[in-house]
Amino acid sequence: MIPRYSRPEMTRIWEPENRFRIWFEIEAHACDAQAEMGVIPHSAAKAVWEKGNFEVARIDEIERETRHDVIAFLTNLAEYVGPEARFVHQGMTSSDVLDTCLAVQLTQASDLLLSGLDRLLAALEKRAKEHKDTVCIGRSHGIHAEPTTFGLKLASHYAAFDRARQRMANARAEVSTCAISGAVGTYAAIDPYVEEHVAREMGLQREPISTQIIPRDRHAMFFATLGVVASSIENLATEIRHLQRTEVREAEEFFHAGQKGSSAMPHKRNPVLSENLTGLARTIRAAVNPALENVTLWHERDISHSSVERVFGPDTTIALDFALHRMAGVIENLLVYPEHMQANLDRLGGLVYSQRVLLALTQAGISREDAYRLVQQNAMKVWQQGGDFLSLLKADPEVSGKVDAETLDDCFDPGHHTKHVGNVFSRVFPD
Amino acid sequence: MIPRYSRPEMTRIWEPENRFRIWFEIEAHACDAQAEMGVIPHSAAKAVWEKGNFEVARIDEIERETRHDVIAFLTNLAEYVGPEARFVHQGMTSSDVLDTCLAVQLTQASDLLLSGLDRLLAALEKRAKEHKDTVCIGRSHGIHAEPTTFGLKLASHYAAFDRARQRMANARAEVSTCAISGAVGTYAAIDPYVEEHVAREMGLQREPISTQIIPRDRHAMFFATLGVVASSIENLATEIRHLQRTEVREAEEFFHAGQKGSSAMPHKRNPVLSENLTGLARTIRAAVNPALENVTLWHERDISHSSVERVFGPDTTIALDFALHRMAGVIENLLVYPEHMQANLDRLGGLVYSQRVLLALTQAGISREDAYRLVQQNAMKVWQQGGDFLSLLKADPEVSGKVDAETLDDCFDPGHHTKHVGNVFSRVFPD
Amino acid sequence: MIPRYSRPEMTRIWEPENRFRIWFEIEAHACDAQAEMGVIPHSAAKAVWEKGNFEVARIDEIERETRHDVIAFLTNLAEYVGPEARFVHQGMTSSDVLDTCLAVQLTQASDLLLSGLDRLLAALEKRAKEHKDTVCIGRSHGIHAEPTTFGLKLASHYAAFDRARQRMANARAEVSTCAISGAVGTYAAIDPYVEEHVAREMGLQREPISTQIIPRDRHAMFFATLGVVASSIENLATEIRHLQRTEVREAEEFFHAGQKGSSAMPHKRNPVLSENLTGLARTIRAAVNPALENVTLWHERDISHSSVERVFGPDTTIALDFALHRMAGVIENLLVYPEHMQANLDRLGGLVYSQRVLLALTQAGISREDAYRLVQQNAMKVWQQGGDFLSLLKADPEVSGKVDAETLDDCFDPGHHTKHVGNVFSRVFPD
Amino acid sequence: MIPRYSRPEMTRIWEPENRFRIWFEIEAHACDAQAEMGVIPHSAAKAVWEKGNFEVARIDEIERETRHDVIAFLTNLAEYVGPEARFVHQGMTSSDVLDTCLAVQLTQASDLLLSGLDRLLAALEKRAKEHKDTVCIGRSHGIHAEPTTFGLKLASHYAAFDRARQRMANARAEVSTCAISGAVGTYAAIDPYVEEHVAREMGLQREPISTQIIPRDRHAMFFATLGVVASSIENLATEIRHLQRTEVREAEEFFHAGQKGSSAMPHKRNPVLSENLTGLARTIRAAVNPALENVTLWHERDISHSSVERVFGPDTTIALDFALHRMAGVIENLLVYPEHMQANLDRLGGLVYSQRVLLALTQAGISREDAYRLVQQNAMKVWQQGGDFLSLLKADPEVSGKVDAETLDDCFDPGHHTKHVGNVFSRVFPD
Repeated sequence: MIPRYSRPEMTRIWEPENRFRIWFEIEAHACDAQAEMGVIPHSAAKAVWEKGNFEVARIDEIERETRHDVIAFLTNLAEYVGPEARFVHQGMTSSDVLDTCLAVQLTQASDLLLSGLDRLLAALEKRAKEHKDTVCIGRSHGIHAEPTTFGLKLASHYAAFDRARQRMANARAEVSTCAISGAVGTYAAIDPYVEEHVAREMGLQREPISTQIIPRDRHAMFFATLGVVASSIENLATEIRHLQRTEVREAEEFFHAGQKGSSAMPHKRNPVLSENLTGLARTIRAAVNPALENVTLWHERDISHSSVERVFGPDTTIALDFALHRMAGVIENLLVYPEHMQANLDRLGGLVYSQRVLLALTQAGISREDAYRLVQQNAMKVWQQGGDFLSLLKADPEVSGKVDAETLDDCFDPGHHTKHVGNVFSRVFPD
Repeated sequence: MIPRYSRPEMTRIWEPENRFRIWFEIEAHACDAQAEMGVIPHSAAKAVWEKGNFEVARIDEIERETRHDVIAFLTNLAEYVGPEARFVHQGMTSSDVLDTCLAVQLTQASDLLLSGLDRLLAALEKRAKEHKDTVCIGRSHGIHAEPTTFGLKLASHYAAFDRARQRMANARAEVSTCAISGAVGTYAAIDPYVEEHVAREMGLQREPISTQIIPRDRHAMFFATLGVVASSIENLATEIRHLQRTEVREAEEFFHAGQKGSSAMPHKRNPVLSENLTGLARTIRAAVNPALENVTLWHERDISHSSVERVFGPDTTIALDFALHRMAGVIENLLVYPEHMQANLDRLGGLVYSQRVLLALTQAGISREDAYRLVQQNAMKVWQQGGDFLSLLKADPEVSGKVDAETLDDCFDPGHHTKHVGNVFSRVFPD
Repeated sequence: MIPRYSRPEMTRIWEPENRFRIWFEIEAHACDAQAEMGVIPHSAAKAVWEKGNFEVARIDEIERETRHDVIAFLTNLAEYVGPEARFVHQGMTSSDVLDTCLAVQLTQASDLLLSGLDRLLAALEKRAKEHKDTVCIGRSHGIHAEPTTFGLKLASHYAAFDRARQRMANARAEVSTCAISGAVGTYAAIDPYVEEHVAREMGLQREPISTQIIPRDRHAMFFATLGVVASSIENLATEIRHLQRTEVREAEEFFHAGQKGSSAMPHKRNPVLSENLTGLARTIRAAVNPALENVTLWHERDISHSSVERVFGPDTTIALDFALHRMAGVIENLLVYPEHMQANLDRLGGLVYSQRVLLALTQAGISREDAYRLVQQNAMKVWQQGGDFLSLLKADPEVSGKVDAETLDDCFDPGHHTKHVGNVFSRVFPD
Repeated sequence: MIPRYSRPEMTRIWEPENRFRIWFEIEAHACDAQAEMGVIPHSAAKAVWEKGNFEVARIDEIERETRHDVIAFLTNLAEYVGPEARFVHQGMTSSDVLDTCLAVQLTQASDLLLSGLDRLLAALEKRAKEHKDTVCIGRSHGIHAEPTTFGLKLASHYAAFDRARQRMANARAEVSTCAISGAVGTYAAIDPYVEEHVAREMGLQREPISTQIIPRDRHAMFFATLGVVASSIENLATEIRHLQRTEVREAEEFFHAGQKGSSAMPHKRNPVLSENLTGLARTIRAAVNPALENVTLWHERDISHSSVERVFGPDTTIALDFALHRMAGVIENLLVYPEHMQANLDRLGGLVYSQRVLLALTQAGISREDAYRLVQQNAMKVWQQGGDFLSLLKADPEVSGKVDAETLDDCFDPGHHTKHVGNVFSRVFPD
């Protein structure tokens, strides 16, 4: 992923230093297990831990010759460990190291993503509670529907990211497995105990059955989950973009003093972070199809999945990590304009209370069809000529003949729409 | 595709009647060629044309036994033709008929799609010319930028669908090929002349080289193109949805007297057709990935592509055909509100002319940085407190000391923004 | 989905009869809750249960007039219930019924998919245990690697579908929620208790917070999961297709007496079911992207998701249901040829034991580099001229000078490769 | 894209040096046009060309302050040009430069991709002609069907890449447009002549109508086309992988002396390049969906497309460029084994001639049904017990009673399957 969309915490996971560090730990733990079983001398395992080391530049140098990264690493390791290095990696295949390492990296990445979600959840909870009772218009189809509160809007997104957190935890569990089972998964040259030991030490589950590699339906599920999380980000980002539209302007991304919205038009204040998040969501979702295609490998493995993972393993986790923190920042600093919310709410002259009028008329004994017609014909006047819906209704004898003024007034009380906010909040934020 | 999103003209192409009609024509033309070459008697070819017939229900009946559609068809055909039917299909394989038939169906579908595009283009051109000079605000990032005209907006979409038309014509050419080349494409049991003759008679090009089947990169290109066309529909539909938002309301889908926007809220007028088009675009694009995966077949063919095409061949062309006509209808009947456009344009108190003020200040010798700062600080006042941008500028001595009132007045002349509309129109609609 | 890829059990879920049945139950349970709260008379709720009914044809007839399916249903229901029908649906919006109904349908579909998975799991377990010790070659990159057993191959796919089962259970939980919360999710016209009651009666969880609709990240997760399951099917189907290749022919789809593999080539026996499953997997995955795009809706909902779900809700669950049962049938009836497995295993003259020879040489004190060179140069002779690898090694003084004949013989013992099969089986089939 | 899958020729296009070079040329040509029109002094335009320069590190330094790349570039340019730099960029917006630059980069990338296709086409043509008459088995469904030639196989892929070349040329034309039209595409602050001049000088077409940006359906078509080309690469790569399978081994990727197929199994020779190409195809196709989603932008533009293009613009063209050359190398160096082809052809004991026997029997007056049964029952014996199909047929009195030995012998003449190879070659390689 390009630096512009990267945080160092996540980038580090995918750097050679971390990868080789994990390889070293896998090999050293495997030596412990092999020594425990009497396959190699205890002194060898001890030497690996005590003298073992590596240097990225040196490994690169060796790899340019051998064209095999695991061999290059082992060669460099041997330069530090000395003759006892011949006991390292015994009975293992490259994939044992590579796939277990990928599992560790994806687990580390998952933990970072979970902490990004936590930051976003905290921001949403704080702002939701702050605006629990800030009334604004709810819209369906982009058209004013009925009042709601800005807190409910944010609580709704909080709930989405709460689900995202659970999905991400499931995805983490999917990919956190260790396999050290040899060329085609039969443990022909290495005892299953080694796998068991390394798994435990590396904080992974054992893969119950592997071929040469860990099965790729796990990774498909992982990347598909990232795609769903990205979509929830796009959903929230789109809400911000809508609210910041010039004609709506109920909320706005924070605008620094001195910031320039446009080089040509000095008046501009654009929701560029949210727009960027929309694009990043597309970028993250791009990995879903390749990951699904990666599941089908020939027999005990082919290597077609590898290039996909080399690209999208880092790119997708880095982009999602970046996006979560950018999204959290947008929410933390969001400028909210309750007075604009009220102005928009009033814009349709009370049309947004049409359902209550409809119910009042039907409760007064008018058939639903007739009631609908009465309310709609008054509503259409407001759409066409503006004006105050309540006054029109009161002036319409067909309406006022059935429902008295007090009842009509009550229909326009926004309190009906906010009375259950507490109930909902208690479900979304359960203490 | 479900009936709700289907037009009979397109559905008909995918019905058994049309498919079997095409099969019949392929077989009969092949007989002509075979007779011409002396492989079968002329009388047999004549008999096929004169006595040949089929009945869908009967074919179904036979297929329930034989479990092979081509064999069922040929059996039914033989019931009409009599003993000379044994000369039908000689040396051909099922795929020769099936793939050539699919080519004819996709060509017919392409023609319908092209005519749907023509209707949409005509609607866009008419409405664009009608509103060539209807001034409205142009928006970037959802924020007011500078004035444009509603005609330019529509002309821009016209140009997109003009490109779509060319792409669709290319896609039609991609899939309009005939292959009658036998089990693995070697013409082992049938002379290439038969293919040449059938291609000519069916209005197709010859496939220069086929395996058992016509290569599927052609179909991938076809479905990918449909996906791009669908995206242009989504783009236009999204524009309508934005313009109809309650706070914007510059245009609206036509709303029938007596139409109900919502069963619960009688005041609602929703852009449901445009929203539906957004969803249909997603549905149409769904075929792109499967079509891309279909390209890779094993050796001289495997049959994995078949189920994908049985589903998405009809579904995608039917949905796009429906979408094009629905989109055309939306444009033809679109309600346009120039007075709301003007009101929105005025909403920011003239901020949208900030670039011209910036240029005037720089032309007056102020550095770009200082000019930007001056314009921006006045603009921010308008964002925060409302008011008239021009008055603020005139009242700012740093500004009025450099640029006289007349020059400032001129900056706020919308004519600067419309003076090249004719130029653009002459490029988009070259007569 | 076209009938060719549909089972009636799943199709039924998506038919009008079932949909209206669910609508009826939702409305009737809601009446109970409303009566319990004193909002409507108990007699009304009772009347709905006792007299309530509907007829699909009549609803269709009414819908042709009203163009609104929920209204049509309620009108027809009222024809049965009589005047007390005016208490039905009170305070509810269409989406309350529609989205809760979709939740029920997706839950029913999930249950069928889970039972399809169970059938497939049972088949895989049975055949895996049957061939636990049937030795065959394991292949990486399509090239012979080392021996494994056919049981291990099947156990590996068993484990994949075991994971699929857990994922499917999670997906079921994702979509099994009920929302009856009104126009924008505020319960403005209906008490939250109604939702609570209906959820309990319909076997759903309550949606903690909804807008006009249930949030679509749930459905995105559902369809993404179906895509992952489909990919595991493709993986297994591809294994079968590979094993049935003429040159491999270790297993074969069952071939009925009298079945025709090809109309033109009577000798053909093709893995058409597995190829079809490959295509169906692509078709099922097609819903993933649209479902991910559906998550982003405008404000409290737009209706762009609807057309996508009308198409892919049925199509995807029907196709996956069909695919699971077809896959199960393929496994249940799979013809397995242990003698061909042995013949293939022997084909490379013992090359597949090269790793053991390499290990033996290194254990005999030769450096890994030299050992590799020795083994590889003998191996390349076999690749180029055929012959017996073991004999070549014995005849090579550089090898036989270091490792005695007995040790070499032992390297070629397939028992090394099968000794942990029991261990793996006990992990995959834990009792 | 990671260096592993990058060629410097393509990487260079996306490096800052090239991007700023193009920016410089756009600005300088725009100055010429402005001078020509009398908007700026001729001396200024001259100064830009003569003194204008930039330094990437310096631009980076400035950008860290201004956080705007175009402003940073212009500032650095001004450091070289001096006071007359104030005439640069006059009346232009950042997007005028950025989008026109992207058009130039994509055009340059297209040219490289076309030359990669040319190399691949040359390789395929050479090898196809070399093996024009090398007989091998054609396979449908992975099962032996009828003989073909290896040259025909390669010619078929040649034809696919010939189509790919035309598609790529179309894609190039799609994205090779220039737009210099201002904030919302109205040329409010710059005359259309500037655009016309810059387009001509930069080798682009004029965009007939733009908003703030060039419409993104063009880029969608571009990336969709790359996806189709990638799929054709996967198709050819899959053919190689199949042919190299141990049991088939009709062709093999070149294997260097001293190359290691596996660190653990010295006998391995794996088609790793073709497998890698399969994965790269998935990676390239990953951009298709994001590019399709990018088409829908809000009003006169939002910036959601930008991050997608920053990532996939380089990544996709670099990966496809790499893949084309890797694919060409695989074909150029492919090891072909005609003797294995012949051995495989003979493997089924002549079953692959079953169609000709079927035709001979029907020509001898037996009904198609009976003939099919006769041929099939003999064929099934060969499948089950091996043996020679021709001998079995001759020994079957039902067959030999109808068709004499000579006719049967003729059915097994592979010449029937190769007699039209010349015809096909003359169509694929028209001189």
